[in-house]
Amino acid sequence: MWQLGAGDIDDLARGAALLGAGGGGETRTAAALARRALRSSGPITVIEPSELAPDARAVPLGLVGSITVFEEKPLEGTEMARVVHALDRYTAGRVDAVLGFEAAGLNALLPVVAAAVLGLPLLDADGMGRAFPGLDQTVFTLHGLAIAPMAVADPRGSLVLIDGVDHFLGEQLARSAVVTMGGWALLAFAPQRAADLARSAIVGSVRKALEAGRLLGADDVPGLLRRYGGRTLFRGKVIEVQRRDAETGVATVPGRARRRWGGGSAVLEHLDAEGRVLRLEFQNENLLAIEDGVVHASVPDLICLLGAETRANVTTEQIRYGLELEIVTLPCAPAWCTPAGLRLAGPAAFGYDVPYSRAGPR
Amino acid sequence: MWQLGAGDIDDLARGAALLGAGGGGETRTAAALARRALRSSGPITVIEPSELAPDARAVPLGLVGSITVFEEKPLEGTEMARVVHALDRYTAGRVDAVLGFEAAGLNALLPVVAAAVLGLPLLDADGMGRAFPGLDQTVFTLHGLAIAPMAVADPRGSLVLIDGVDHFLGEQLARSAVVTMGGWALLAFAPQRAADLARSAIVGSVRKALEAGRLLGADDVPGLLRRYGGRTLFRGKVIEVQRRDAETGVATVPGRARRRWGGGSAVLEHLDAEGRVLRLEFQNENLLAIEDGVVHASVPDLICLLGAETRANVTTEQIRYGLELEIVTLPCAPAWCTPAGLRLAGPAAFGYDVPYSRAGPR
Repeated sequence: MWQLGAGDIDDLARGAALLGAGGGGETRTAAALARRALRSSGPITVIEPSELAPDARAVPLGLVGSITVFEEKPLEGTEMARVVHALDRYTAGRVDAVLGFEAAGLNALLPVVAAAVLGLPLLDADGMGRAFPGLDQTVFTLHGLAIAPMAVADPRGSLVLIDGVDHFLGEQLARSAVVTMGGWALLAFAPQRAADLARSAIVGSVRKALEAGRLLGADDVPGLLRRYGGRTLFRGKVIEVQRRDAETGVATVPGRARRRWGGGSAVLEHLDAEGRVLRLEFQNENLLAIEDGVVHASVPDLICLLGAETRANVTTEQIRYGLELEIVTLPCAPAWCTPAGLRLAGPAAFGYDVPYSRAGPR
Repeated sequence: MWQLGAGDIDDLARGAALLGAGGGGETRTAAALARRALRSSGPITVIEPSELAPDARAVPLGLVGSITVFEEKPLEGTEMARVVHALDRYTAGRVDAVLGFEAAGLNALLPVVAAAVLGLPLLDADGMGRAFPGLDQTVFTLHGLAIAPMAVADPRGSLVLIDGVDHFLGEQLARSAVVTMGGWALLAFAPQRAADLARSAIVGSVRKALEAGRLLGADDVPGLLRRYGGRTLFRGKVIEVQRRDAETGVATVPGRARRRWGGGSAVLEHLDAEGRVLRLEFQNENLLAIEDGVVHASVPDLICLLGAETRANVTTEQIRYGLELEIVTLPCAPAWCTPAGLRLAGPAAFGYDVPYSRAGPR
């Protein structure tokens, strides 16, 4: 159990952006909201699932939809309270804590706002351990925890509660609501038992984002890689970028409908070793790093981009011709390396017919 | 208070189809479901809102979405119970009765199924007094009664509860859920107080459909017109039909988004009076009857089509070249003739720039 205050938000946001692995969304607005909420509430308590009573109930929440729209029209302020209270009302229970369903990007920061606004502890845990585009790409799906009833709230006051669905249909219904709601909404999954989260959730994500942000802030990338078992894969200059629109960038989920996300690929020339060329495949996040036809890193491991000079996190949307980048990889949470984890979030889940290998040749 | 049994369903369905004014959906499947439900439950009690305690709660319900899909994949059986119980659960209350939000077509029959399945009385009242395409075209909107929280259930077990919305956004969110749900769903509006319904709902709709069906079954159209203040407008043969697809057939709701329904127009030549020609404009329902540039009948009044020889109800989808039709009009519920009622459901709400006049020249 520890305290997180307004002074921690810069580091948390910096780490959360890195753990977005190119995606996860711009953190600036969410960081400002979290700073403001913590200044008003004072520091919040961050606690591990095992420190709660086994039957305590914690709600995983975060933003779904368009981050661009969110940046233009951010939180109205009551969204967190409305999703949590709707679940309380429908389940005739009381929520004891909140957590993020996603540990990266702005979705590492919005649960901080929720904890501050609701006066609840924040769990040091999440459902992805990184950012994924699919709401079903969580350890809740992986471990068969129910996500319904789930609640979705928009800044205009609308609330949609979804029940009787599996992870896949739940995601579809939430996304169609979000489109009608105007672009983004706050989503909460069903309250989870603390005992289930202690067993199934990815524990330590808030501390990891905070520490990664501190190390990055001190420009100690080697320390960060040592601390989390990562390595620098490539230092290169972008010599080509191709982008696909969402309709073309189609990945097939076996036996289910097809996902459609935009994305593209970038080619980088090594800054020092002449002749070395690396291709980066990305959709919302960086997904594959390929050199000479060999996959050197792949989703679900994190492939992160830093400005070679600026040392600032670079998102997939920011990749441009001429950018000089340091590509680092960080291992994903162990849950994703299982056969079931890879079916849900490995290369094949994004439409790539390559095997996952945790450590490719250098 | 009276009883409605399986033996009444033929008449109820025949009357409900006529009151659909060309729309409201095919009643055959819903009639079969109602007959089966009543055989199993025994007769249900039909009761007026004023006969309930003022604070008794009644849920308006019916089908939304594609009737074609409903015909292919009808009720799973638990939809009624699921929407009502979800509302009970969310509002921490208990529903005492059900009613239809629409009094015509298959939506006059599904509330009968709901009453039988749930063991609740059916209110002799509804929210439209006819069929309308818009979920916001109800007396609940007209009288400012809240429609949220509303619940939507599909035959696969999914349930969506919508709260914090006005009639317009509620309709949009319900419809996007229904599309994701696969085409149709059962929808329940917020439980309404019996006292509010006694004041605002259109009372007597179940009895009216039943009696109209009996008179029609006895081929007593003159008796039916006398009983409900209607008249025969035209007896003619269809000499031309034009249909627009939904994208083209656009009606603008002032200040809100645009509705899009398909529709078209038909031209009829009088069977007896040479030279008389009538044009019928329809979308889901028949909306205008125009002769020599004069509007002889218009929505919200009912414009109904009967086979001139068959005496069977004819829907807008069934209009074909060569059909011989008797066009009859029936007055709408008085609530729709007010300025506010006409704004919501008059010709302009369907994109026609003509005034409403209850009784046009012959």
